[in-house]
This record gives sequence, structure tokens and C-alpha cells, in this order.
Amino acid sequence: MRGLIDRLRGVERDIVQAPEAGSGPYYEPQGSEIAIFEAAWRRRLPVMLKGPTGCGKTRFLEYMAHRLGRPLVSVSCHEDLTSADLVGRFLLDGESTVWQDGPLTRAVKAGAICYLDEIVEARTDSTVIIHPLTDHRRRLPLEKRGLEIEAHEDFLLVISYNPGYQTVLKDLKPSTKQRFVAIDFRYPSAEIEARILQNEVEGLDAELATRLVAIAHKARALKDHGLDEASSTRSLVYAASLIAAGLPPLEAGEAALINPLTDDVELAMALREIVKAHLAAA
Amino acid sequence: MRGLIDRLRGVERDIVQAPEAGSGPYYEPQGSEIAIFEAAWRRRLPVMLKGPTGCGKTRFLEYMAHRLGRPLVSVSCHEDLTSADLVGRFLLDGESTVWQDGPLTRAVKAGAICYLDEIVEARTDSTVIIHPLTDHRRRLPLEKRGLEIEAHEDFLLVISYNPGYQTVLKDLKPSTKQRFVAIDFRYPSAEIEARILQNEVEGLDAELATRLVAIAHKARALKDHGLDEASSTRSLVYAASLIAAGLPPLEAGEAALINPLTDDVELAMALREIVKAHLAAA
Amino acid sequence: MRGLIDRLRGVERDIVQAPEAGSGPYYEPQGSEIAIFEAAWRRRLPVMLKGPTGCGKTRFLEYMAHRLGRPLVSVSCHEDLTSADLVGRFLLDGESTVWQDGPLTRAVKAGAICYLDEIVEARTDSTVIIHPLTDHRRRLPLEKRGLEIEAHEDFLLVISYNPGYQTVLKDLKPSTKQRFVAIDFRYPSAEIEARILQNEVEGLDAELATRLVAIAHKARALKDHGLDEASSTRSLVYAASLIAAGLPPLEAGEAALINPLTDDVELAMALREIVKAHLAAA
Amino acid sequence: MRGLIDRLRGVERDIVQAPEAGSGPYYEPQGSEIAIFEAAWRRRLPVMLKGPTGCGKTRFLEYMAHRLGRPLVSVSCHEDLTSADLVGRFLLDGESTVWQDGPLTRAVKAGAICYLDEIVEARTDSTVIIHPLTDHRRRLPLEKRGLEIEAHEDFLLVISYNPGYQTVLKDLKPSTKQRFVAIDFRYPSAEIEARILQNEVEGLDAELATRLVAIAHKARALKDHGLDEASSTRSLVYAASLIAAGLPPLEAGEAALINPLTDDVELAMALREIVKAHLAAA
Amino acid sequence: MRGLIDRLRGVERDIVQAPEAGSGPYYEPQGSEIAIFEAAWRRRLPVMLKGPTGCGKTRFLEYMAHRLGRPLVSVSCHEDLTSADLVGRFLLDGESTVWQDGPLTRAVKAGAICYLDEIVEARTDSTVIIHPLTDHRRRLPLEKRGLEIEAHEDFLLVISYNPGYQTVLKDLKPSTKQRFVAIDFRYPSAEIEARILQNEVEGLDAELATRLVAIAHKARALKDHGLDEASSTRSLVYAASLIAAGLPPLEAGEAALINPLTDDVELAMALREIVKAHLAAA
Amino acid sequence: MRGLIDRLRGVERDIVQAPEAGSGPYYEPQGSEIAIFEAAWRRRLPVMLKGPTGCGKTRFLEYMAHRLGRPLVSVSCHEDLTSADLVGRFLLDGESTVWQDGPLTRAVKAGAICYLDEIVEARTDSTVIIHPLTDHRRRLPLEKRGLEIEAHEDFLLVISYNPGYQTVLKDLKPSTKQRFVAIDFRYPSAEIEARILQNEVEGLDAELATRLVAIAHKARALKDHGLDEASSTRSLVYAASLIAAGLPPLEAGEAALINPLTDDVELAMALREIVKAHLAAA
Repeated sequence: MRGLIDRLRGVERDIVQAPEAGSGPYYEPQGSEIAIFEAAWRRRLPVMLKGPTGCGKTRFLEYMAHRLGRPLVSVSCHEDLTSADLVGRFLLDGESTVWQDGPLTRAVKAGAICYLDEIVEARTDSTVIIHPLTDHRRRLPLEKRGLEIEAHEDFLLVISYNPGYQTVLKDLKPSTKQRFVAIDFRYPSAEIEARILQNEVEGLDAELATRLVAIAHKARALKDHGLDEASSTRSLVYAASLIAAGLPPLEAGEAALINPLTDDVELAMALREIVKAHLAAA
Repeated sequence: MRGLIDRLRGVERDIVQAPEAGSGPYYEPQGSEIAIFEAAWRRRLPVMLKGPTGCGKTRFLEYMAHRLGRPLVSVSCHEDLTSADLVGRFLLDGESTVWQDGPLTRAVKAGAICYLDEIVEARTDSTVIIHPLTDHRRRLPLEKRGLEIEAHEDFLLVISYNPGYQTVLKDLKPSTKQRFVAIDFRYPSAEIEARILQNEVEGLDAELATRLVAIAHKARALKDHGLDEASSTRSLVYAASLIAAGLPPLEAGEAALINPLTDDVELAMALREIVKAHLAAA
Repeated sequence: MRGLIDRLRGVERDIVQAPEAGSGPYYEPQGSEIAIFEAAWRRRLPVMLKGPTGCGKTRFLEYMAHRLGRPLVSVSCHEDLTSADLVGRFLLDGESTVWQDGPLTRAVKAGAICYLDEIVEARTDSTVIIHPLTDHRRRLPLEKRGLEIEAHEDFLLVISYNPGYQTVLKDLKPSTKQRFVAIDFRYPSAEIEARILQNEVEGLDAELATRLVAIAHKARALKDHGLDEASSTRSLVYAASLIAAGLPPLEAGEAALINPLTDDVELAMALREIVKAHLAAA
Repeated sequence: MRGLIDRLRGVERDIVQAPEAGSGPYYEPQGSEIAIFEAAWRRRLPVMLKGPTGCGKTRFLEYMAHRLGRPLVSVSCHEDLTSADLVGRFLLDGESTVWQDGPLTRAVKAGAICYLDEIVEARTDSTVIIHPLTDHRRRLPLEKRGLEIEAHEDFLLVISYNPGYQTVLKDLKPSTKQRFVAIDFRYPSAEIEARILQNEVEGLDAELATRLVAIAHKARALKDHGLDEASSTRSLVYAASLIAAGLPPLEAGEAALINPLTDDVELAMALREIVKAHLAAA
Repeated sequence: MRGLIDRLRGVERDIVQAPEAGSGPYYEPQGSEIAIFEAAWRRRLPVMLKGPTGCGKTRFLEYMAHRLGRPLVSVSCHEDLTSADLVGRFLLDGESTVWQDGPLTRAVKAGAICYLDEIVEARTDSTVIIHPLTDHRRRLPLEKRGLEIEAHEDFLLVISYNPGYQTVLKDLKPSTKQRFVAIDFRYPSAEIEARILQNEVEGLDAELATRLVAIAHKARALKDHGLDEASSTRSLVYAASLIAAGLPPLEAGEAALINPLTDDVELAMALREIVKAHLAAA
Repeated sequence: MRGLIDRLRGVERDIVQAPEAGSGPYYEPQGSEIAIFEAAWRRRLPVMLKGPTGCGKTRFLEYMAHRLGRPLVSVSCHEDLTSADLVGRFLLDGESTVWQDGPLTRAVKAGAICYLDEIVEARTDSTVIIHPLTDHRRRLPLEKRGLEIEAHEDFLLVISYNPGYQTVLKDLKPSTKQRFVAIDFRYPSAEIEARILQNEVEGLDAELATRLVAIAHKARALKDHGLDEASSTRSLVYAASLIAAGLPPLEAGEAALINPLTDDVELAMALREIVKAHLAAA
């Protein structure tokens, strides 16, 4: 079996990749977000995608990168991410140290779209390092090498920001926010969300899609009653997938729409009522 | 004696191992957990096992890995665990640095089931690093190498989560939870728990098993009276084992069912009453 | 496409650069700031630029560096910036360690203007290391090498400081502040700000420039009603650029003047009213 | 004298040592602790020794290790102890890095009893790393090497735990405690404690031993009056040793039974009264 | 221009330097500080200079070092300064590590006066490492090398201390303070301060010097009304220098005496009134 | 002069040194401390010296080391001191790492008296590492090397402890304190203190010594009125030394007995009155 494992092992590839040919990722437009992004792109103004969890920000950016024909470099930020993780660092190689560009540096050089997902989570040096990239200078200082890089003419910086998550300790400084053009995202309308479901889960019939979306809309109303976060479109896709894989609808709803959302017994019961009301007959 | 020590020393082996042949680990199903897991596996949806200490989550996963014929890589998370511990790091080797894959990377490449036990304990970079593995991308970025890995088609990510332990400072973000299909675990029913005991401790007679389970059920009711945590099935196995090793039942109860559970004199007395009531005559 | 990427990659260049020939950066004087800076320069007194976000401090310094014919070395400070990041550090090279000057050391040697942007954010060792550079000694100690550097006769130290941002934990010590001549910056007058807009965005007509400036002045009045930070000149440039790129004025206002400034629904509505009042007919 | 120093220098030896031949360490049994330990040993169940400072937990384990004929590896835990200190780390050796097993790894391989003294003091990664050693897996993962070790069949893990010391921040998780069979230790009875004293301090007459023990019992009663910790058996051994070395009894009591226990003037006076009442005539 | 930059680059020199020949630094004595310092020097007692910001402590020490003919090694302390920064560390050089003395070690060996400026800011290991240098032992332990250094017979340790800055968390321990002879510094008298101004700024006429000093005395009275720190002599020198460089007196006052001292609008207005009252006619 | 500096440079020597021949350090006994220490030494019981700042603990230990003919290794502890600083660490040397013993390890091997001054300041791993050295085991584990050292038969561990300094966060655990025989130190009686002064400062006449001691006794009474710490014997030696160096008595009192003790104006005035009352006529 060890041979089997070796034969099938995951494929390594460069993080900077030209977009694949073809029609590109599926994306359902919700408003003027494509026009705003394209205007910002024309002037190379940095962009901030604002909006809640799982509302499609990442997918939108994959769609725009394909549409504009630019590579996309994504970095998920977290509280241990330092500027060195973005910019690069020296590594020992044989008898000397060699510099290895980080993902931001590579994107700056290659003219890629660089997506710093939830940058507010990163250490502050990471938010400061991008300042000179976001104004007329369009430069990335590599202070450890005594160099700076003038960005490729097609480089674009994009960050995401979830307004509900920030705390007093962790928030983007207003002076940083104003360095971006900002696009607001919300959950899609029921009609659009049902179309997304059908597109994501092959063979999902329209009625079940509509029922699942109806559950989400009811569940989102519980957010003011203590639910930490509304059901995301992703949760609906999971529920539909489990049903498509043969699981009874009520069990699929339990596993995808209730258990991941809450540990609270009463909230779970409220969600269960909603699920039953829409899926019991499915 | 030094020679003796050398001869018997523990065996080192790779952490990615094909499941052993044969009937696999013993597991008593409690509900639809096997069906849910198999549906998630068919769609390669990431899975979260929710439930209290010692209720059998680890054993369930060993059982499922054997049933599905996949290797299982387990990582116990803790608050000093960083993404480098999961993904890998550079090591000095002779005159150059070489990259060494971490356990997550190895599982991603080998198509193993990777089990991150109590991931909420880990540093936040560890929870962020798994995001691209849990959506349509199924990719693991190795940022320090400027690479990303497309997961093996059989790779599955599983995490565990104990709802009773989270604090304000340490909890999975709702956006992370919704990236998983979640299966709820509880303590097994008395009948099942007695069967588990008899299976684990060779020669344990049915009556003693039933008595021990009865103690646990009584003790679990004390949880609302200040006991930090209910008696686990593991504690019952320990008590039965000590009795099987020749220790008088009351002393076995003291050592396995009372002393490890509480330092409080009154709670210890309450537990002792329960133990005596069921084991004094054993 | 990979070849394309390589061909267009961003240009690396030394951070210490002689000013470009020509008329230099565009700058609209607001008061006596040029005279004060030149007097300080003549006596080589260190300078502190005080003022809010996006009011033109960086641009002013680029202008002065060009006017005085000195190279400009800028460092954006942040809470992980240590004195080693400014002064330099030892790196492994082949079989020995070599010293690499940091940006401050390079500026001190080259007689550049060194600009430490928001130095209060840096670690305290960074603010202490500049003390001997700011008095009659004009020396930079390289303690790790057991050396000190007598500054080039044309070296000048400039720092920036945003009075609104400091907290009890993060503030320049009075003893540090008094080592600088300080120039106060404010937002430009409406007339000057409109001129700046027209200069920055080619083809922007005077009326639209005036309207945008009027929005900013109204929005700045909201600062006492909970807005974290007033609209910067930069935001106006962004709005004008998006309009110039073909976006309808109201959508440009939404993306550049509302979304980046606030997540609060009511404040956003107040801003939206202001934007509509001035741009609806544009 | 330098030569003298070199000649008498302390002896280095391996931390894993076969027990010495002969009758082994002196130990006075207090209850069923030997039977419980032997039952746990027969089933290879991990053991937790609970009890206050200086009540003989370390000595008991030395006694059991000798009785069972296993090497004993002890590690005193502290808040800077990480899992690497237990498991091992890479060291540079010549041109490559070599792995060096930590004390836990060596015990696991050699089939020793590994004693983690006050493990609650260690960093949490240390408590998590032992989990797979304490259940049916009996494996120690060496994550940095991508290996795991199947424990030697004679390996036994023992930890100690002082119920009086834990705080909200530092306590073993209930899920960790339930992985152990626990043995409760208390201070020995007066009769046993006097026997211990006579055994430890050669030539100590029975009456003085009895007097010293009486002091300790009186002093322990002060614990509810502000004394941080009761007099340990060790303190009594010190007092007896100083008297045996020729110091007057009252001064020995001052140095061993009063000064180390409190800095409080009134508590010291109370202790002095107790000492005088029992030793003035000695 | 690059050639120009290289030709004029700052001069590197050893931090331990013999005092320059000639009359030495200008210093205006304020009381018996020279006599106290010389008496301490004769007995090699360590000295602490106490006093507020910018009152001339550094200048005094430069003067004394020249007067006594000893080299002066100054270290500005900060909260990231560790004992290794003072004592030295191992560096990689070729194939081995070499020890590099820190500035304190070099001063101890060379018999220099070592000045630790604001030592209370440094990490505590820095204040402890100097203890054996401040008593009869006069030794500096180099614990990392297993050595200690007997100080050169002319070595003298001097520290500075600003009584207004200490907090509960950051203060010299009384046991450390008592290891020093302490000299109190205050702002100079009006007459002396005017003389200092004229000496520092060539061509400054006596009347303007007197007016500037009068401003400082008025401003210092504001310290009880919320001003963080009184105007230092250094601020007066800056104001005089800007005037000498051609700036109108009121603007020089704004830049040197108001802006660096406060961000508070009302305090700034109060200072402005004082400046106007004395300089409007200048 | 550079040559001069090199010629006189401080002498490096090993930290483990045989005691010098001759009569040894001057020490004035205060009570039974010598007898207690010798009794502890005979039984090799670890010793704790308790007492306030500057009351002679260090000098006592130097005296005892000379009297017993053992080398003395002193380590001043501080909050960054780790067990590696005491025990040793690996250093790179040429192509391999070599172990370098720390001062504690060297003392353990050489049979020296090891003095850990204010050990409570050190990190907790430092206090735990000494546990096996303080009981019947007398072993020092070198965990990083997988070794342990059996202490030289003449090794003795001594720590100091200042009861006034401990806080809730920083205190020796009772279980650590009980591992030591403790000797209480106080300030010497007036008569003894005057003798110490005369012995320390050559040529000091008896009357001045008596007057200085009288100042200290008065000043110590101020401790209950807000003075952080009483005047130490060391301060008196400083005052006497400055007078011997020619400084007028009142100025010597100011520099040695007032300025180092307090920054408070009223306390300073109270101290000044005391000094004047005793020294004005001197």
C-alpha cells in the first residue's frame, strides 16, 4: 500500500499561476461589484472586500482574476503572520544565506492580484508593510535587503475585512482603511442563492434548493437571538451534498445546518424546528 | 541490565501507516454517525467530531479509517502548536537546509485521513492554514516554500471539538465551524457502555460491568453539583482493569473513579457513597 | 504566460536613491512649513511632522528632499520594528557573518534625509537609538559591532507623529519630543484641496473637484458624531479616479467615501446623504 | 588546589539507570499504595501521585522502581518546560543536525518508569504530548521527525500532582486527569513519621524523634491561621540533622522549623513557642 | 551623485575613544556637582546622576570625562536592552563562534567611564549584572564564558535616573539605588541658562537669550497645569538656532517651544501667549 | 593613549577560584550564624540567607567560604535568568556543537559553594532545577545532554532571600523554602556597625563613625513613614568614603545618605534634618 500512497501523492505547484483557460469560475453577480472592481483595476487602486463569512468574497476574486487574466496569489492571514511571511526571508543554502521572496513580493514582481484574506488578523507589521504599495509610490520595501521593489504595472492589492469580527484590539486603523476602495458584500438574494446551490451540487432539483435557501433565511433571523453567525451559503451546499450522497434530508440538515452552528441546546432545537418544517417532506 | 534495555527498546515507525489487515478496532455504533461520516467521505466534506471527554471520538475515527481503508494521521493540538508543526519546516542537513513535511502535509500528499484533535487549543495560524483545504480549493499552501499542494483525491480532514471546554479567548470562529459537517457524540447508553467494558477488559463478568456503568451514570448526575467532568468510559475501564488485576473493588473504585475526578473532600465523599453502594458487595 | 510574468517583473532598486531630475513632486504649500523646514535643515535640527492621516506629510517630505537635493530614505514603523531593523544586523554569508547596514545606518552614512513614519509605533529601542543622532553628538552607535558612526554632514532625521493616535501605552516620551523641531499639518483649505484633486486626477473638471471637497468638509464635521477618522484628501482622489474610470458618481462615492470610513449603518446613511446631495446631479 | 578540584569533580552518568542492587530505598508504607501501584503496573495503567509537599511521593516511587526492577527517569516540570524538553530536539553536529532523544523518549524506548513531577507546571504542549501514551495506543509521536514510537512493554508513566497548588490558570484538564489511576498521599502518622526520622538521621534517639514529630503536628494546625504550608517531614529531618551536627536544639529548630516556614513576625513567634515547649529541655 | 554619496559617507570609529585634546566640552557648573563627582572618582564609588530631561546630565559627564582624562562609553538604555547587549555575545565567524565584548565589558577592561543612560528602562538582567561592579568586588561576570573580569583600576560606572518617569512597574530597586552616590540636577538658573544659550548659538545677542530663558521659566510653571514636561534648555537652543537661521521669532517659537511640547489646543494657546509676550517685539 | 588602555585592561579569570590565602575577608559576627552555617555544612544541608538589602549576606558568605576553604561561585539572579544560564548550553565550535557548563554545573563538579543571590527573581525553571540538588539525591540533571551529575561531596548550595521584596507573583514556593536551612540576618547593632565602618574606611575616626551610625538608626525609623528602604551599612561606608576623599560632611551626607534613598521632597527634608543634626559640627 505504501507504493500506492507514493503514486497518488498531492501535486506541488507554484503559488503564482496564470489563470486557467476556459470559462473560469462560476459566479453570480449581486450588484455593481464587478463594475467597481474593474474601475479600481483600471486606476490600479487597492480594493477592500467587506462582508460576512461565506458570502462569496473569495469566489468573486477568483472570478475577477480570471476575467482580467491575472494570476491570483491568496494569503490567509492570522495572528502569527508577520511581514517576513509576506515579504520574504533569508534561508541557509549550502554555505551562504539566500533570500526567498514571500508571496506578496512574488505577486508584486509578477503583476499578480495579491489577496490578503482577513488582514486585520495579522501582526501590525504586515498592515504597515503594505502602505507604500497602496499610494502613488507603489513600492514594496525589502528592508532586510536594503532594496525596494517598484510594483509591476499590473499588480493589484486586495484585502478582505469582516465588519462583525473586529475588536478594540484588532481593527484596521482608519488611516489604513482609507487607502482602499471598498466593496460591500451581503448574502445573496433567495433567488440567486438557489441558483448557486444548483450550480454547486450537480443534480440538485429546484424545489430542494428553494427549501434549503428558505431554511437559511429563517435561520439568519435567529442571529439576533444569540446565534453567533448566520447560516452561510457554504452550509447549504454541504447539506445539499450530503443529501446527494444518500443521507436522509433531516440527518443532512442536522450535520450541516445545526451541529456546526451552535452548541446551545435551545438554539439547536429552534434550528431543528426550522429544518424539519422545510425538509420533513423532502 | 543495560543490554536488556537496549534489546527491548520501543519500535520507531512512520506516522503515515496503511491500516492493519483484519477486523479492525472494536467499535459500538451509537446512532447514524457511520452513515454521516460515509456520506461526507463520498463528497470529501471535512468533518468535525463534537462531544465530551472520553466518549469514544478517537476510537470511532480509528474504526472509520480502517473501514474506509485509509491511513490515519492524528495530531493532538495544544496551545504551542503552530502551523509549522503541521505543515513542515526547514532543517539543517549537512551544508544546506532541507524541507521536512509536517504531519498535515504528509497526510495531504498521501491521501490519509488527518485528525486534528482539539484544534481549538492550537495557535490561530493552525486553524487558518486549514481553510483552503476545507473548501472547493482543497489546497495546502506551503508559504515558506512558495508552493501549494493540491490535496490527494482521498485526503479528508477531521477535527474534534469539545463544546464544554471553549472559553471567550479560545473558541473556533463560526466561519471555521461552518467549513465542517459536524457529528454529535454523547456518552453511550448503559447497555452499550457495559458491552464496551466487557470488550475492553477480558474476563469481566456482565454483572460487574453493569454495576460499574451504574456508578458512572450516578456520578454523571453530580456534574451539576460541582464536578468538573463526568466519569468517562475510560475511567470505568481502568476500574475494571484494577479489579481484574486483583485489587479489591472498593480500592479500585477509589483509585480510578474518585481520586482522578476531584480534590474536593465533599464531592469525594459523595462519589465514595456511590461506589460503595454498587461495589461493596462485588 | 509564465514568460510574460518574468519579463514584466517589478524592478528592484537601492533604497538610497539620488532625487530624480526635473521639477520634482507636486506640492501645494499650506503655510510656513517650507521656511521652517529649511531653517531646521540649515542648522541640521531634527524635524517632527505632526498631523492627521492623509494630510500630505509624506508628500511634503518628498517635495523637500527634491528641493534640497538630498536622497530620501523612508521607513514605516510598526510595533514589531526593532532597533536592529533600523541599524542593521549580522547575516551568515558563506563561512562567516557579515554585517548589513539597516536603512537608518545607510541614511546616516550617505547624508540622506531619513524619515521614520509614525515612529511611536515602533519598539522603544528604536526611539532610544536615535537620541545620540538628535543632539550635538550626531552619532549612531552600532553597539553590536562596538562602533559608532559620525553622521554625514548632510544627514537629517525626520519623524512623523499623529496626535490623535497615541495612547497611554504608546506615546513618545516628552524628552524625545523635545529633541525635534515640530511642524503642524492640518487638512488643506477647500481651495487648495480642490487644486490638489485636479492635479492628481487628470481631466477632473473644477466643479466636480469643488463638489468632492465640499463632501469631505461636511463629512469631517461628522467626526464628532462617532466617525473614527475624517475623509482624507486621498479618499477624494480615489472617488475622482473611479469617476474618471467611468463609474457612476454615486457608486464611486459609495466605494471611496462611505464604505472605507465606517461599518456603522447610521453613519453610512448620514455619509450617503452628504454624497447624494453633492453628486446626484453630477 | 586547582588539581584537587579537578580530581574530585562530580560524576556524570546516564539518566536512565538500572536500579542498584541491594535492599533499595527505605520506605514506610502508609496504606494500600503499594497494592494499587502494583495493580496499575500489571495492567500498565498510568499513575498519578496526589499529595502535599514533602510527604514522600518521590521516595515512594524510588521504592517502587526498585521493587519492580525498572529504571526510573525523573523530570521536575516547570513553566518553561516544553514538549521538546521531554521528547527531544535536533542538535547541530559537525555538518548535519542529529536528533537527541529527550528523557521521556528515552524512558519510552527503554521501558523505564518515567516520573513527571508536578507536570501541571509545564507548558500545555507537555501535557498533550503524553495523551497517546496514556491510552490503548501507548505511542509517543515524534512529530518533528515524522515518526512515532510504540512504547516498550515495560514503560509506565507516572505524574505527581499537588491539589493545594493549582490555580484557575494552571490546572490539569479533567480529561487529562481521567487518563490516570490516582493514589492519594497524606503526611504519615506520628508513629510512622518518628520511625522515618530515626531511619534518616543516624543516632537520633526515639524521644527526640517523638518531640520533633509533635512539633510538626502542632505546627500543621497553624496552617489554618495563615501558614502557607505545613512543616514537612523533610524539615524535621533537617532539624534532627543540625542537632546531630552539634547545634543546640533551639537554634536548630529556629533554622529548620521556623525561618524557612514564615517571614511573618507573629507566626514565627507562635512557631517559636511550639519549638520551645518541646525542645527547651532536650 | 552616487559617487558623491560614497565619498562623504559617515565615519565609523571605535566606541571607546581617548578624550580629545584641548579645552574640552563647554559646561556651566551649577553647584557642587564637580566636587562630588571628583570625590566619588577618587574612591571609585559608582555615581547616579538624578534629574529631569535636558537639564545637562550628558553634557556634565562629557565634561568630567575630559577633565579626568578618561574615555567615556555611553549606552542609551531601553526596554529591549538585555545584559547581553552590555556584556557581549558569541558571534559566528567562519567555522567557530567568537566572543565579542559589549560596551560595558570594553569599558571595564579599558578603565573608561561607562554611562548607562536611563538604566531603569533596561531589562532587569541589565541592572543585576552591574551589582558586582558596584561593590568591593568590582568584577563583571561573563557567565556565558565562565569568566569574570576584575575591573581596570580606573573604571567608573555612572547611571542616570529621571525621578519623574518611574512607574510601579519600572523603578530601580532601593537596593540598587543605594549602590550609588547620587548627584541631583535641576534646570540651571536664569543667568546660567542665558549664558549656555549664548555659548551654544553663535551670535545670539544677550537680550534675545534672556527673553528665551524667560519664556522657559514661564512655561515651566505650566507643568502643574497639565504640561507633561517643562521646556528644556535644548528647546531654547533650538528656538535660538531657528531664529539665527532666519526664521521669524514667533514661528521659531511655534516650532521649537510649542509644537513639540503639547498636542493640547488650550495648552498650546497658553504657551503661544507666553511666546508672543516675549518675542513679538524681538 | 590607546596603548595605555590596552596595557591596563582588566584581568579575566575563571569564576571558580580557590580561596586566597591569608586571613580572608573581614567579617563581624552578629549572632550564631557561623555555628548554624557550619552545622549545615557538616551535613551538607542547603542554606538560605534571609535578610534586607546591604546587611552583609554576601560578605558573610565570602567569609564562610574562606573559613571552610571552599571556592565560592556567585550568581546574581534576575527575571531573565533561565536554567540554561545556570546549567549550561550548547555552543557552536568549528563544525560541531560543544557543551559549556554553566556556573552551577561547574560548582557542582568542583565541590564549590554555589551562591544564587535573590533566586526568587529568576525564572521558575531555575528554582525547579535545584530541587534534586537539595534532597538526598544531590544530583543535577543536565536534561539537554541526557545526563545527570552526582554532586561533588563538598558541594553546598546557598541562596539568598529578601523577605520584604516578594510579591504575589514572585515568591519562592513553600515547598522550595522547606528544602533549606534558613539563617536570619538583620542590620548590625550600632556598636558593630561603627566597627564595620572603621574597618572599611581607613582613617575614619571613631566619633564620625558613631555619628554616621546614629544617622542610619534615625533614618531606619523613617521606613514606616514612606521610605522604601532603610539606609544600608553600604550607604554609611559611601558617606564616610566621600568625607575621607575631602568632601564636606553635609555634602557627603546629601550624596550618599539622602539622594539615593528618596525622590520625595518631604522625606528628603526629613533625612536632611537628621544628617545636619549629626554632621553639621563634624
